[in-house]
Amino acid sequence: MDTTQYFVSPAEQAVFRDSKAAKIDLRRGGAMFLGLNCFEPGQSQPVHTHAGADKFYLVLSGMASISVAGETRSVGPGTLVWAPADVPHGVVRAHERTVLLVGISPPPTE
Amino acid sequence: MDTTQYFVSPAEQAVFRDSKAAKIDLRRGGAMFLGLNCFEPGQSQPVHTHAGADKFYLVLSGMASISVAGETRSVGPGTLVWAPADVPHGVVRAHERTVLLVGISPPPTE
Repeated sequence: MDTTQYFVSPAEQAVFRDSKAAKIDLRRGGAMFLGLNCFEPGQSQPVHTHAGADKFYLVLSGMASISVAGETRSVGPGTLVWAPADVPHGVVRAHERTVLLVGISPPPTE
Repeated sequence: MDTTQYFVSPAEQAVFRDSKAAKIDLRRGGAMFLGLNCFEPGQSQPVHTHAGADKFYLVLSGMASISVAGETRSVGPGTLVWAPADVPHGVVRAHERTVLLVGISPPPTE
């Protein structure tokens, strides 16, 4: 599908880097940011928090161990991971090439 | 996968109603709401706007014609539909049984 202002094929936007996990901006509104986090096998994202910002990951493809508030699970396509404001979260390890749709509200500073 | 506070299987939460499209709340934070819109074939959601709130649909399963700002497309699994604040959007018609993940920031009033 060709991407337009309103219709997006996230899988087609995925980019992978050997050096570290890649972050792709998809859309940024006044209240919500949407992007991708793309991992090669073995790559990770350190546990971190977003002060005052709610976040989710949705696994689009692959398999990764994701941690929220110290609860770590190995999750695959279709799993939604909810990281409410101020709750520590991160990607412990991607077990395969993995693409996560990420949403953050309010948007992070550019 | 069993659902916990932070890990959710949206597909397992889907509910369908003969009378009209079903709405399921998944998670509600101070800044973001996540839910499902579930359609039987032929069901729809009238075009509407959210004043000041950014919204997306992600097609989890099925096939539906979705409209944003007058642009209508028939979309299937994996397509992300971005409806920024104050831009009219709706589901013209579900062509199959369809499940949409929906995110809205800031959350709608309960």
